Amino acid sequence: MSKIAVIGLGSMGYGMAQSCLRAGHDTWGVDINADAMARFAAEGGRAGALPADLDIAMIVVLNAAQTEAVLFGETGIVADLPKGAVVIACATVPPEFALKMQERCAKAGVLYLDAPISGGSVKAANGQLSIMASGSAQAFAAARPALDATAETVFELGDSAGAGSAMKAVNQLLAGVHIATMAEALTFGMTQGVTPDKFVEVISKCAGSSWMLENRAPHIVDGDYTPRSSVNIWPKDLGIVLDIAKSAQFSAPITAVALQQFVAAAGMGFGGEDDAAVAKVYARNAGLTLPGEDA
Amino acid sequence: MSKIAVIGLGSMGYGMAQSCLRAGHDTWGVDINADAMARFAAEGGRAGALPADLDIAMIVVLNAAQTEAVLFGETGIVADLPKGAVVIACATVPPEFALKMQERCAKAGVLYLDAPISGGSVKAANGQLSIMASGSAQAFAAARPALDATAETVFELGDSAGAGSAMKAVNQLLAGVHIATMAEALTFGMTQGVTPDKFVEVISKCAGSSWMLENRAPHIVDGDYTPRSSVNIWPKDLGIVLDIAKSAQFSAPITAVALQQFVAAAGMGFGGEDDAAVAKVYARNAGLTLPGEDA
Repeated sequence: MSKIAVIGLGSMGYGMAQSCLRAGHDTWGVDINADAMARFAAEGGRAGALPADLDIAMIVVLNAAQTEAVLFGETGIVADLPKGAVVIACATVPPEFALKMQERCAKAGVLYLDAPISGGSVKAANGQLSIMASGSAQAFAAARPALDATAETVFELGDSAGAGSAMKAVNQLLAGVHIATMAEALTFGMTQGVTPDKFVEVISKCAGSSWMLENRAPHIVDGDYTPRSSVNIWPKDLGIVLDIAKSAQFSAPITAVALQQFVAAAGMGFGGEDDAAVAKVYARNAGLTLPGEDA
Repeated sequence: MSKIAVIGLGSMGYGMAQSCLRAGHDTWGVDINADAMARFAAEGGRAGALPADLDIAMIVVLNAAQTEAVLFGETGIVADLPKGAVVIACATVPPEFALKMQERCAKAGVLYLDAPISGGSVKAANGQLSIMASGSAQAFAAARPALDATAETVFELGDSAGAGSAMKAVNQLLAGVHIATMAEALTFGMTQGVTPDKFVEVISKCAGSSWMLENRAPHIVDGDYTPRSSVNIWPKDLGIVLDIAKSAQFSAPITAVALQQFVAAAGMGFGGEDDAAVAKVYARNAGLTLPGEDA
């Protein structure tokens, strides 16, 4: 039984904190949102100050800036962590940033696991995430109780921070483009008399299928844009991908165009909806009515 | 046992003709390439003039123009087909074109099945294609022996020509974009230390996967660009998609960008290679060396 803090109780972090609790760990939940902390405390979690002998800090925030603030900002936690404790950093960040954080943690005697997560909020709550992890053998060993509690699959991608974040960026490039392409193809089909439900029925069995198509296209068929993962994730994550690409002088034209479609979806006011709502950009541009919309 | 003609003995048509032969049908093979006809005759097929009582004509050519020439050109076959025979049109064509061909065949008393194919040359030779078909009940009934001989899955998409071609266009949009996106992501990963084999190993189990990624990325890992399906297919097929889209006033920006990557691959001299060679565009642009290339 470990002492674990989950910092960031958003749609992913809250479920991961629940999964740690369910696995029997003494778990602290920390968020700027007091309601989330109170709710977690009501479920058996801890809401007070972190203990001096904390074993594991999982950082489940939005990006590099928030990760750095949590670790090394004015009220940063690393200064107060005991030697040998491990930081598990779960945000999508540039590989170079992860490497820098590993170095700064090492100076404080704290281990660092570069550990971006994938799978969505339902899998987070069920302890079934995929984690793309890299770090020293000591970091993996120290992180194991939290990894076991939250993940179904842990990819061990290397012995230093950076490799995990690199693979996550690659995965996000594909996932984001595939969602937008699914929306482009589904709405294109509508102009040719292919209904959204026929699209899902046939294409999911054909060479044009993708994991994201099978997962997201049914949301459009159902007209259900309850956010499992929101449109707003993609300008952020594809932006990180393109920043990394630019630094490496790598031209990524398809990613760049897909990003624009999510930006347009946010601009139309759908940023908080499920990311399948990127289909609304295509539908509006072409004068189409999606399932569940008024004609 | 039916009398079937397969017109167009390219990488798909030749295998389909073999599958008809294997199923016990009396099968004629027709191509402008005399070598292909002689080869098919040597395997037990027929190479002479089509019989007056032909049951089924499968047209396995490249595009709408070739389909129209085969059916209604100077030496077009429809004029000589018996009433009640069926044309199975397998090329990727605009839905409106398929509808027009159906009408013209009907005037000659000939049935028409709009039946684009999917699956590649290996599945063609094994009788395991997917066929996206639409047409009258009579057309389906008349075509059944040839469909049974060549297809594992026949999607019955409607009672008139057009619906099959529409679904094929949707599938090609996705398949083409997914190949180019796989190439973009795989080479992007290389700039961040993700090796091509690690890419396949991890991403194929993640949300970023696609049918095309799992099928084509291993070709890059192996440095094997033997064309199962060539780069040259995609400027053609994505061009058809964009022509249909433009006619419908549908904006398809991701498809448009993916098309350009295949055009660049052809421009670099890789048009006859496996379509995974679109990765060479990204690699050259970024100064990367793919597996099997000299550094």
